[in-house]
Amino acid sequence: MRITKILERTIPLATNISNSARSLQDIRTTIVAVVSDVIRGGKPLIGFAFSSIGRASHSAPVRERIAPRVLAAPPESVFNAAGTNFDPDKLHAVAMKNEKLGGDAERSAAIGTLNIAVWDLVAKIEEKPLHQVLAERFNGGDVQDRVFCYVGGGWYRPGQTTQDLQDEMRGHLAAGYSMLKMKVGGLALAEDCKRIEAVLKVIGDSKSLAVDANCIFDRQQAIACGKAIAPFGLRWYEEPCHPQDYETYKAVAEAYAPPLASCENLFSPRELENFLLYSGFRSDRDIIQIDPPLAYGISGYLRVIEIAQKHGFTRKSLFPHGGNLMGLHIAAGFGLGGCESYPGVFGAAGGFNDEVSLQNGYAILPQSPGLGFEMKPELFPMMREMIS
Amino acid sequence: MRITKILERTIPLATNISNSARSLQDIRTTIVAVVSDVIRGGKPLIGFAFSSIGRASHSAPVRERIAPRVLAAPPESVFNAAGTNFDPDKLHAVAMKNEKLGGDAERSAAIGTLNIAVWDLVAKIEEKPLHQVLAERFNGGDVQDRVFCYVGGGWYRPGQTTQDLQDEMRGHLAAGYSMLKMKVGGLALAEDCKRIEAVLKVIGDSKSLAVDANCIFDRQQAIACGKAIAPFGLRWYEEPCHPQDYETYKAVAEAYAPPLASCENLFSPRELENFLLYSGFRSDRDIIQIDPPLAYGISGYLRVIEIAQKHGFTRKSLFPHGGNLMGLHIAAGFGLGGCESYPGVFGAAGGFNDEVSLQNGYAILPQSPGLGFEMKPELFPMMREMIS
Repeated sequence: MRITKILERTIPLATNISNSARSLQDIRTTIVAVVSDVIRGGKPLIGFAFSSIGRASHSAPVRERIAPRVLAAPPESVFNAAGTNFDPDKLHAVAMKNEKLGGDAERSAAIGTLNIAVWDLVAKIEEKPLHQVLAERFNGGDVQDRVFCYVGGGWYRPGQTTQDLQDEMRGHLAAGYSMLKMKVGGLALAEDCKRIEAVLKVIGDSKSLAVDANCIFDRQQAIACGKAIAPFGLRWYEEPCHPQDYETYKAVAEAYAPPLASCENLFSPRELENFLLYSGFRSDRDIIQIDPPLAYGISGYLRVIEIAQKHGFTRKSLFPHGGNLMGLHIAAGFGLGGCESYPGVFGAAGGFNDEVSLQNGYAILPQSPGLGFEMKPELFPMMREMIS
Repeated sequence: MRITKILERTIPLATNISNSARSLQDIRTTIVAVVSDVIRGGKPLIGFAFSSIGRASHSAPVRERIAPRVLAAPPESVFNAAGTNFDPDKLHAVAMKNEKLGGDAERSAAIGTLNIAVWDLVAKIEEKPLHQVLAERFNGGDVQDRVFCYVGGGWYRPGQTTQDLQDEMRGHLAAGYSMLKMKVGGLALAEDCKRIEAVLKVIGDSKSLAVDANCIFDRQQAIACGKAIAPFGLRWYEEPCHPQDYETYKAVAEAYAPPLASCENLFSPRELENFLLYSGFRSDRDIIQIDPPLAYGISGYLRVIEIAQKHGFTRKSLFPHGGNLMGLHIAAGFGLGGCESYPGVFGAAGGFNDEVSLQNGYAILPQSPGLGFEMKPELFPMMREMIS
């Protein structure tokens, strides 16, 4: 049993959407494929994952140093104790070998995406969906059939009217979602508040709406926005400022009583540890949104859970960033608060797969082995092509 | 006047040295060349720089997104006010366009190396050495002819004896250096202390010796090493622990009264700001070693100086990491504490150039226009080849 090839390909994800901080026209994602010599149904099993949407290509570090390192490891050195499967944590340790401390963003996405592809492969070898493998190993066998799922929507689009925004939100509710998120910070504060009011008319319950500022504000603006939206009593106020500006987070947490959310732009358990030490985040209400493929994958996420719990947070405070099959399996498998969904944006990388349906705000979990990219017809042809 | 091409090439730097944390056998550096249409002596002026030694290749981000962005900018939009030269800060803003906040290590070295190559070009257009351009713009015209310079040496080598180590150090003193640095943390603490004692026999003054642990220790080990070496009264104790483990830095600063040094593994002014807010670093004695090409170049270093001063440090507390022409010009031009030198290691990227000599611990500054890589016969042929 061995890994025979590790392949990567970066694909463009055409969109015309913007958040408060930038246009998402040129974004890309890097797909990683881990090919094994384990044969099922006459074909080798292959693990797949893709990197966090919205950041750079991660092909080069995979190709230049991470994949060669992993392929050079003696096969038995990365087996589990019984020798029946690969051990993702051992492979993670090999991938990290001789990497210099600090600067996690140099490789955390390359290594994290590879790590999730390895977990996909491991679950396929076990012939179970990944959420089940994770629940059996890390959540006392509490295997779920559904997971709470909210829509990361309400983007700024060229020529968009309030009516368009309301129609978008009505569509999400009709599709089976119960909680929605929308962008703020891209317009003047008074206009953003009008957008929020318009969406609240559609959704009704203010606890079912979150807002996301995508790090756009300085300290004064972040507090001003918090004060303006506090009366709405929203589900959460996400990323008011720079992800590592802990002093501004602390000032916002002092000025804004309802829940805050952050951490999708942190690259490692170490960065999360510092965030929780210094940001004033409140374990009784605030939400941690580490993006697994960005921050060392599932092997990294095990440390994320440990650090969050050390700081008094429960698993229900964790909502992995990235509306895709990876976040879905991770949220379900670890018993987290829930996951995100991006219906209709991010092209082939958006959405879940054909097995997943929505009911009363919950996503019904897929049952294919692994993550189930094979059941995602917009994406899987690209994966098949890159390995052929 | 425009930039016509931006080229990059990653070259291996064969060494057999190790520090406490890792072998440096496979390290690389990325050279960036910024080609202009400004003709002098019948040839176009070209700016060169190379990335921080000891980290990964930075070719991909330069090639895939940074260079295309810079080349697409309207030429006049990146001129200085008089239209007589390029404005490196305007080019820096273009390079940063649409980059997502957080995760500086995704691009700070690519953008930083490009930025220093631009500064090399700007100084060549002014027909002055870069240290002079920097002193005129940022240090009240206080142009220096020499700068304090210490040796980053005392590595662990296969089969090395104490005598070998002493001979290495004697060689540095004979070459004109007065301050030396050696590695710790690669052996048991008692053995490392014996190495220090052996080197102190050669160098005499303990204020002329620093030690570098390359981030190897956990909190307990970092404090234990500090307590063991405190009686020596060394110049500084560098990087005891993980570069972002501020709580351990704080504990070491409480337990160890002599100077500490750190920050070569921080990737941005933002990371420095957090380090100074939380690490307990003492502005009256501790040393800040940001590596300019790693952390957004000279445009980034302007912010580094500002942040350090805001926290009570003077320019004399700053010693840029990286024993090369870039650190030399930056230390001299900004009037910093001094710079590092790596004689005889890191192959073509080690050392300064043929113009630089050492006298009583000071490096006599080069007078060629720009950084002066043209006068570095081990390295310049590679630069010439990549642009031909």
